[in-house]
Amino acid sequence: MGAFCVSRNRMRTVDWHENGVRLIDQRILPGRFEQLTYHDYRAVARAITEMVVRGAPAIGATAGFGLALAGFQSHATTRADFLRDLNEAAAVLRAARPTAVNLAWALERVLKSMTHHASEKVDELQQALLAEAQTLADEDVALNRRMGFNGAALVEDGDVILHHCNTGALATVDFGTALGVIFAAHEQGKKIHVLVDETRPRLQGARLTAWELKERGIAFDLIADNAAGHFLRTGQVNLCLVGADRIAANGDVANKIGTYKLGVVSRENGVPFYCVAPTSTVDFSLAHGDLIPIEERDSSEVLNLQFEGEDVAPVGITARNPAFDVTPNKYVTAIVTEYGVVRPPFIKNLTRTQESGARI
Amino acid sequence: MGAFCVSRNRMRTVDWHENGVRLIDQRILPGRFEQLTYHDYRAVARAITEMVVRGAPAIGATAGFGLALAGFQSHATTRADFLRDLNEAAAVLRAARPTAVNLAWALERVLKSMTHHASEKVDELQQALLAEAQTLADEDVALNRRMGFNGAALVEDGDVILHHCNTGALATVDFGTALGVIFAAHEQGKKIHVLVDETRPRLQGARLTAWELKERGIAFDLIADNAAGHFLRTGQVNLCLVGADRIAANGDVANKIGTYKLGVVSRENGVPFYCVAPTSTVDFSLAHGDLIPIEERDSSEVLNLQFEGEDVAPVGITARNPAFDVTPNKYVTAIVTEYGVVRPPFIKNLTRTQESGARI
Repeated sequence: MGAFCVSRNRMRTVDWHENGVRLIDQRILPGRFEQLTYHDYRAVARAITEMVVRGAPAIGATAGFGLALAGFQSHATTRADFLRDLNEAAAVLRAARPTAVNLAWALERVLKSMTHHASEKVDELQQALLAEAQTLADEDVALNRRMGFNGAALVEDGDVILHHCNTGALATVDFGTALGVIFAAHEQGKKIHVLVDETRPRLQGARLTAWELKERGIAFDLIADNAAGHFLRTGQVNLCLVGADRIAANGDVANKIGTYKLGVVSRENGVPFYCVAPTSTVDFSLAHGDLIPIEERDSSEVLNLQFEGEDVAPVGITARNPAFDVTPNKYVTAIVTEYGVVRPPFIKNLTRTQESGARI
Repeated sequence: MGAFCVSRNRMRTVDWHENGVRLIDQRILPGRFEQLTYHDYRAVARAITEMVVRGAPAIGATAGFGLALAGFQSHATTRADFLRDLNEAAAVLRAARPTAVNLAWALERVLKSMTHHASEKVDELQQALLAEAQTLADEDVALNRRMGFNGAALVEDGDVILHHCNTGALATVDFGTALGVIFAAHEQGKKIHVLVDETRPRLQGARLTAWELKERGIAFDLIADNAAGHFLRTGQVNLCLVGADRIAANGDVANKIGTYKLGVVSRENGVPFYCVAPTSTVDFSLAHGDLIPIEERDSSEVLNLQFEGEDVAPVGITARNPAFDVTPNKYVTAIVTEYGVVRPPFIKNLTRTQESGARI
């Protein structure tokens, strides 16, 4: 799986390194490439909040390793004390960001591995915890590969693809979700062109997606998010690909702010709008998207912008900054998962996909 | 009319000053406030292209004064030679930007004043030209006042208004179009709150609209363009107000890039979407919006961005940068003009409005 890594050095966005959690610092890309290694799970939680790492699957893997780290930090000598420490750490990590369900899902899964591990020995529990976090990270790469393959079947030779935010290797452990589909189509020799939404306010498209596409030699143009509508209306886009931070049981998709507008305008123009996400992104406990908590981030993300070297916003003004929005299922043509392409009615087909997937 | 000027100094965005065309340099606002005075019509054309001045009505007034300037620059000694010089200058000014029809309209009008002026004396023609350009500029302010009054009737006390780009005093000679409606509603004592689309790529919302609203003490929050959909879908917006650079005979609206997305998503959520523009913005020669030329500007407007002090886009990539898009008439609830609020069917009602207006 390492062949499709975030750089030519075969490194992962998130990994376990020298007894700590190592992350590529995505706040300073593409200007500088640096990795940071954390040895305190609280610092890992802060790194998630401050978006050193972002992207729902990458956050999940980071939280998994963060919990393993908390295990090694624990001074407990009994299983009960150790589990209490883990639960405390899980609460801290879970609170780091509210919208992406993969965070809670990963913590749940790594914690659950403890219930299957009967040992009373703390050092054995620590090793089991790390093994589970590592498995989760490795599986993420494998899942992304499968999603890429499944989604690439929807891409025709010559297609122009509109993409929002960053959903590549940097949003996952490696390879990516929606960008993974683009990478897979490119590997299959399909000649594609990508229109990259810059994705204000944090500009993950301009900073990260542009960087990943450039590294791989895939043809693209960066556009202001506002321009997407023009290209859709004038017939210059064949399909849209986006990721997801949480999908409700009925297929409503919470994703990076701006996804909703893109979904509405895609449907209005008859352009297929595909969401690419592993089934771990589906939150079956939520009947619909309006139950998904939407994180509102600091207004500085909107205000701290310079255009051609000059500060943009007047001093002393206020901004609103919802980080995600909800795209109701009627705008979603299909959800591409590791088990295949799921089409409406999602309420039935997502459940069926998860059940059949669980048997694989 | 000077009471509602772009600053507390009662100055206009565009005026005739010391035998030249004086413009507020909008490229450096809000950080710095500077006025530039031009004494060569070719430099005026460049100022329009480079967006020292922008906004359809402001461009129109600038072109009018620019043509007056060309008149004073002419060395002609006969009426025929003078008119030939004027036509040459008009062609240069007309080519400065392609989308806003007000530019061509203003040139046409100021040129036409020559046909009504029988004098053979060049100095008389020069003065007549300037008088017409000045009348056009003065009328712009009066029209904007009337549009503001007409549009304010659509705003209820307590409304949250979503606004795109800049359509205020800085987009006109003074007062504004869509922002003029907001100013008028505010003057009427209506308590309103504005959500200001930052309006990538040139950020006229963040730079200019935020500045104008702040100067007038009107409550607002800046938002990333991507966030508008979230606020519309969750019932937090009562109406949208936008300007126009050109309106086709059927009511299709060419306006700042991103307007189309906003129009589609507004209709999808049952939120009224009003376009505010003088009838000079209607191009009756074009049957529909797809005939309106869409300017594509330099990719540097997308690429030359710094976020928290760091360059955003990787070096050496390409961007697409359409400056305008077309919002088909079905998304437009009404067009607010100086003669009243025009509702569909626009093809009939715009013509009727123009005809009745011509009789006033």
